[in-house]
Amino acid sequence: MLAEFELIARCFDRSTGRALGVDVGIGDDGAVVSLTAGNSLVVVTDTIVAGVHFPAYTPAHAVGYRALAVNLSDIAAMGATPRWASLALALPDAEAEWVADFAAGFFMLADAYNVELIGGDTVSGPLVATVTVHGEVTAGMAALRSTASEGDAIYVTGNLGDAVAGRLSEGDTDAERYLAERFLYPTPRVHEGLSLRGIASAMIDISDGLHADLDHLLLASGLGAELRLDALPLSPQLLDTVGRDQAIEMALLGGDDYELCFTVPAGQNEIFQALVSSWECPVAHIGITVASEGQRWHDGAQQLYVVPDSGFDHFMAAVDELPEDAG
Amino acid sequence: MLAEFELIARCFDRSTGRALGVDVGIGDDGAVVSLTAGNSLVVVTDTIVAGVHFPAYTPAHAVGYRALAVNLSDIAAMGATPRWASLALALPDAEAEWVADFAAGFFMLADAYNVELIGGDTVSGPLVATVTVHGEVTAGMAALRSTASEGDAIYVTGNLGDAVAGRLSEGDTDAERYLAERFLYPTPRVHEGLSLRGIASAMIDISDGLHADLDHLLLASGLGAELRLDALPLSPQLLDTVGRDQAIEMALLGGDDYELCFTVPAGQNEIFQALVSSWECPVAHIGITVASEGQRWHDGAQQLYVVPDSGFDHFMAAVDELPEDAG
Repeated sequence: MLAEFELIARCFDRSTGRALGVDVGIGDDGAVVSLTAGNSLVVVTDTIVAGVHFPAYTPAHAVGYRALAVNLSDIAAMGATPRWASLALALPDAEAEWVADFAAGFFMLADAYNVELIGGDTVSGPLVATVTVHGEVTAGMAALRSTASEGDAIYVTGNLGDAVAGRLSEGDTDAERYLAERFLYPTPRVHEGLSLRGIASAMIDISDGLHADLDHLLLASGLGAELRLDALPLSPQLLDTVGRDQAIEMALLGGDDYELCFTVPAGQNEIFQALVSSWECPVAHIGITVASEGQRWHDGAQQLYVVPDSGFDHFMAAVDELPEDAG
Repeated sequence: MLAEFELIARCFDRSTGRALGVDVGIGDDGAVVSLTAGNSLVVVTDTIVAGVHFPAYTPAHAVGYRALAVNLSDIAAMGATPRWASLALALPDAEAEWVADFAAGFFMLADAYNVELIGGDTVSGPLVATVTVHGEVTAGMAALRSTASEGDAIYVTGNLGDAVAGRLSEGDTDAERYLAERFLYPTPRVHEGLSLRGIASAMIDISDGLHADLDHLLLASGLGAELRLDALPLSPQLLDTVGRDQAIEMALLGGDDYELCFTVPAGQNEIFQALVSSWECPVAHIGITVASEGQRWHDGAQQLYVVPDSGFDHFMAAVDELPEDAG
């Protein structure tokens, strides 16, 4: 058993050369890396569990991609440059093919962002993947949740709600297959997060749904917000598949979108508009921060939308039910 | 469910002040820390799984202690100073009492070594704890496995074999209770590892058993070793409980001891002897490195001891069987 897991651990050892800053990589008791002078270290950790954060039948390639993506999204929200990752992987069986697919998904994303795997642990156990990503940021320049000011404009990247719809979809139509892909392969907004450093006054990633995560930002900053329901960025595929009412609930409560939510002070608006004109990903102006606490979502000119009182659990029931046509 | 896990996550947030070097601790998307100028970062990660690395009935306090201890042992083997830890904890139930006990065990050890918890993730899932510890080391001074030379003396700290005997023991005698304690609360040799920096030519921690881990060191250094069976440090409690033959097998193959194995060049012997005279933990001179590969264990003057051909699995059968009198 140990021998099998040692063989499998080698799937993750690609250290032919040494990446920048890596003095000692995989193969010793620990890794040794060196930061650029003047930079601080940013550390993020996220765990994904089969049957909780993804259905047990999710392809290994997508699980490997996801284990890193959810962490890169946190690095993005800190305005940091991702550098080095550690992977702790518990596996029920030492199936070489599954692990090779997992590693391919992990490295596809790692290579796209120049992230070096510097160590980890592969053990026998239920399927749980924990990744820690280390990034660098100029000292004092990390983007926090707690630093928004009254009157800042509130923005989100990408489209919201696609991921939860994709997780629940049967994949029968092109739109459903698009949504499933958004669930399986979320795009961490690393470049966008980096470029917002010094421009956004506060930033968070949307992993639990916009409503819950914006609440975290507002509470940390001691603010509330006025928001426009019709400004929520909803993909045509989501609207076609579930209709507007359900799409709004999924955008606000669904989670797993891994987009960024951030605030921009009026004084930074001009430079921000110039910046986003060069982005490939869409960005939506959804509201403004105010002094009085809480989120007030306006549907049209006067009508107030009451956000259903539930977050993460709202769409979780079916997470581990195999779609009928997926067997 | 989410709310319960958020409440539980607060068990781990003790950030009243900020430890040295911590710019942003628990509560944002990531933590931000600053290294001392001239230091490199050392990163270690280890995962422990209920029923694999510890019996499922292990007290929560010991599980929390262990999750950190196994990582501090790796930091010790790198000759680094532990600084900051991340904890990813998957839990079947959000039982506040269990988590409070786990946190108490974790922080008992963290406080002893001035380790600050800077972040983590608490999720629903089977009981799996992954800890990543970040340490600092003067650039270029990390202790590696690959740097031993021919003719270096080989040493180990502490006594070997106690942990595996303790894991299998019924706790009927004082000796068995001592061994069980050694399994539940291993002492990471952080101070010893640090003080050996610049003195030991190579170092590794003994987590898989002396035979397997010394092999790692020897292979990485391109060496073999001549070793003396009668120099193996065996506790009176282990000898009393299982006898000499079994004690030797447990010392060589048992694992979970979390002691250090290291090599000392002849030129460093004088300073090394002066150093260890101030240690509280015992140290045993068990052999010498040689050019020809493999480990040769001598039992007395001429007789060669054949190490049984099995490692980690050797004593694993009973890991999850509840001792009859422990229910």
